[in-house]
Amino acid sequence: MKILLCVILVVILPAIRRVPYEVSAQQGKVRDYRIANEHRILEEFVTLLSIPNVASDQVNIRKNAALIIEMMHRRGLEPRLLEGGKPNVPPAVYGEWKVPRATRTIILYAHYDGQPTDPKQWADTLPWQPTLRSAAIEATGTILGMPKPGAKIDPEWRLYARSASDDKAGVMAILIAVDALKAQGIAPTSNIKFFFEGEEEAGSSHLGEILGGHRKLLEADAWLICDGPVHQLGLKQVVFGVRGDTNVDLTVYGARRPLHSGHYGNWSPNPGLILAKLLSSMKDEAGRVTIAGWYDDVAPLGERERRAIEEAPQYDNVLKTQLGLALTENAGKSLLELINEPSLNINGMSSGDVGALARNVIPTTASAVLDLRLVKGNDYQRQVERLSAHIRKQGFHVIDHDPTDQERLTKPLIAKVVHRDGGYNAERTRMDLPVALSVIAAVQGTSTKPIVKLPTSGGSLPLSIITNNLRTVTLTVPIANYDNNQHAENENIRLQNLWDGIETMAALMTMPSSAK
Amino acid sequence: MKILLCVILVVILPAIRRVPYEVSAQQGKVRDYRIANEHRILEEFVTLLSIPNVASDQVNIRKNAALIIEMMHRRGLEPRLLEGGKPNVPPAVYGEWKVPRATRTIILYAHYDGQPTDPKQWADTLPWQPTLRSAAIEATGTILGMPKPGAKIDPEWRLYARSASDDKAGVMAILIAVDALKAQGIAPTSNIKFFFEGEEEAGSSHLGEILGGHRKLLEADAWLICDGPVHQLGLKQVVFGVRGDTNVDLTVYGARRPLHSGHYGNWSPNPGLILAKLLSSMKDEAGRVTIAGWYDDVAPLGERERRAIEEAPQYDNVLKTQLGLALTENAGKSLLELINEPSLNINGMSSGDVGALARNVIPTTASAVLDLRLVKGNDYQRQVERLSAHIRKQGFHVIDHDPTDQERLTKPLIAKVVHRDGGYNAERTRMDLPVALSVIAAVQGTSTKPIVKLPTSGGSLPLSIITNNLRTVTLTVPIANYDNNQHAENENIRLQNLWDGIETMAALMTMPSSAK
Repeated sequence: MKILLCVILVVILPAIRRVPYEVSAQQGKVRDYRIANEHRILEEFVTLLSIPNVASDQVNIRKNAALIIEMMHRRGLEPRLLEGGKPNVPPAVYGEWKVPRATRTIILYAHYDGQPTDPKQWADTLPWQPTLRSAAIEATGTILGMPKPGAKIDPEWRLYARSASDDKAGVMAILIAVDALKAQGIAPTSNIKFFFEGEEEAGSSHLGEILGGHRKLLEADAWLICDGPVHQLGLKQVVFGVRGDTNVDLTVYGARRPLHSGHYGNWSPNPGLILAKLLSSMKDEAGRVTIAGWYDDVAPLGERERRAIEEAPQYDNVLKTQLGLALTENAGKSLLELINEPSLNINGMSSGDVGALARNVIPTTASAVLDLRLVKGNDYQRQVERLSAHIRKQGFHVIDHDPTDQERLTKPLIAKVVHRDGGYNAERTRMDLPVALSVIAAVQGTSTKPIVKLPTSGGSLPLSIITNNLRTVTLTVPIANYDNNQHAENENIRLQNLWDGIETMAALMTMPSSAK
Repeated sequence: MKILLCVILVVILPAIRRVPYEVSAQQGKVRDYRIANEHRILEEFVTLLSIPNVASDQVNIRKNAALIIEMMHRRGLEPRLLEGGKPNVPPAVYGEWKVPRATRTIILYAHYDGQPTDPKQWADTLPWQPTLRSAAIEATGTILGMPKPGAKIDPEWRLYARSASDDKAGVMAILIAVDALKAQGIAPTSNIKFFFEGEEEAGSSHLGEILGGHRKLLEADAWLICDGPVHQLGLKQVVFGVRGDTNVDLTVYGARRPLHSGHYGNWSPNPGLILAKLLSSMKDEAGRVTIAGWYDDVAPLGERERRAIEEAPQYDNVLKTQLGLALTENAGKSLLELINEPSLNINGMSSGDVGALARNVIPTTASAVLDLRLVKGNDYQRQVERLSAHIRKQGFHVIDHDPTDQERLTKPLIAKVVHRDGGYNAERTRMDLPVALSVIAAVQGTSTKPIVKLPTSGGSLPLSIITNNLRTVTLTVPIANYDNNQHAENENIRLQNLWDGIETMAALMTMPSSAK
């Protein structure tokens, strides 16, 4: 921690402080409103976070939607559900705030569903039991009760719950920004529409169908996406693109029944070893993907994008210290560069048992779940085909079902490759569009530090589904702390990030029509 | 199944039938006793199988020992517990049947503990809820109630329970053989001692200490081990050796906390990939272990041993058909040959989650449990050292604890290698010793088919602990069906194997003093 602190104090902060930025008077009013209402905001947020929100949980996902409808009703935002074509599709929640004489329309997007999670892996609390801590668990934060009325709320406290950051924080920041503007009598400069998705973490399988069914209603000049983390150094960000994403389930096979590893070991093939060799073949020692064609389609970055990456603060070494890493994959390239390349990640793998349940057996199968991230130029179907072709090239008979007796007896190596539902491509918006310049100016106006402009975020959002279905562009303005454990156990938000996010969202609603 | 049947009918059975063997009159009497007592035997066996018997389950393991003491008291075998030096060591159960004027002493060994198991993985029944089925589950056997008094008992029925084969079947066969001999007035030809171990499946960690504490009591010319399966073709076996065995837990590391695979994928190292590459490096494509020195110490087989392997029926193709295997590891060598080589098996591996709980994360660790089998000449400590040296050679910093912050920040690759308690070496008894010839003659005398003589069994037993602590030799005479699912879920015994086993054990107790 000492090294980390030194790097921040000696190298980075002075560099940042040399450039002064000013904050608007209007932002001060939004801040005043928040300061006077922190207890109420927290209470409303905890209520929203208490409802389980995995997209496949039909009953609870609709409870979330119903609560958000109610929250928007209270604010006069004319909410309604936008349903998919089939039953049991998590609905989107839509609303609007019409502004007389506004010539521009923006849609503010967030999603209210969250990643699945195993409650057993959470420390002391449960995913849908929102809990305040005095600091991050990693910094030995202790559990606090909810603050009594009038008690001071420390902005370094963390609120722990599934979706505290990803992405109910987005829903809250947007709705509280509406409260602040209305209470302070500040009018938006655009017509504002709201779109809260209910199955982003399940791959947005029905988003296209919901958008396609409401093209007129959803007309807008730009979608502003409130999702993801701010920069690792705490700087605000505007992100012009996202990676695409898709998942593949992979299973390989040994004998039809589990076998005693003494009587049959080193004669009957071990599926764990087969999987290990197959996964090993997909990346070289440096972490570069070795699948043929993997990097072929990548659309090169433009001059403005390359400059933005160069201007962004270097923090790889800070991160390595924090995460306990002596070496990173693809060493020589920075994280920001690598985010502009397609990736391949092993989300999980399993064969037999480890730990106390381990037995001296040869298991019957070994499985892995792969996460493929795509950048501009990649197509997610084509990338999965390349993966399948690579598996074939390693000698595997590739199937999409459990092997038949005939297949087992004739094919020495069998891989079941199942492309999960819900992939989508990357998206990137040009950094020199007028609306892009307006967004940059608005976000910069809320911060005394230089904001970071990123051509592409590492994470994925279904933005290509939006631009494929509607004539518009997307820009992402994240608010969460980068160490929020999103997608993992112990997800949390740092309160100051929520407070800052409210000001950012208010600034977007009131951004000037065209940037200087 | 048709192919399998053809192979058996056309190729193997006629070859076997050409050699006629005769069965003794005495064996007929033992069989008569069993036929008249099948219901009672089954009832006593079910009572024994109903007590959970994982060695670490202190309470239940002693309930098993207490029941066996009671069963031996009923038979006049003067039972007592042999305790280890520390408390909480599963005791061995000892007994004896002294024979006036016998000049030879044999000890009959079996173990009453079983492998750990996950009840959820069992089909329809529970591990310690013994259940009869009309046939094997794989042959769609249906669940039967216990037979009513007087009802016929089909010898093809299977009794499902943990340790039904491995190795409470051994305890039962030995004790019922005593009943049969006593009931029919047949005297043993040796002094007979009984030794039932209580932690064989946990690696016999305290066996040496129990033996060492009772050297005088346990004096014997030979230990006859009743454990393991008969030949895959149903032929009885005498096995002159066993492989040694030891287990290693292996863990490799990524970042200190789970990371979003989009924001950090292909920058932060993935422990699943690291483990896959490490495991892949341990064996070549053909399945040969590539760890330096792995095969160096192997003591070559003698002429008699090589001939025994050649004479044993070839059944690899039958097995491959049954198991659904198009190709085996180390193809070109038969299973019987490979059993005489040291092995390396991945019992299990795990990183993150697969299936419904899989998330788009980079997990923090990946783990595997390895099973190392040893043959005569290998030393289990030395073999683990070779494994560690190999891991170091792949660039890993090898430790026996979770990595410190300092280690994480300075070592790009870290592997925690933990050698589990309870390894032991292989053991092999010369096939031309007088007692070996007596045992061969006795077992052959119970079968009309030629028995199989194996220099080494694929499975492991702590026989080297016995020969290291006591001046004696060991021979193994297994009785279970080969497809008994030992160590896995749905363990079972085919009743005919138990019936045959009783006759085999009775024959050992009455074998002639020296073979012709």
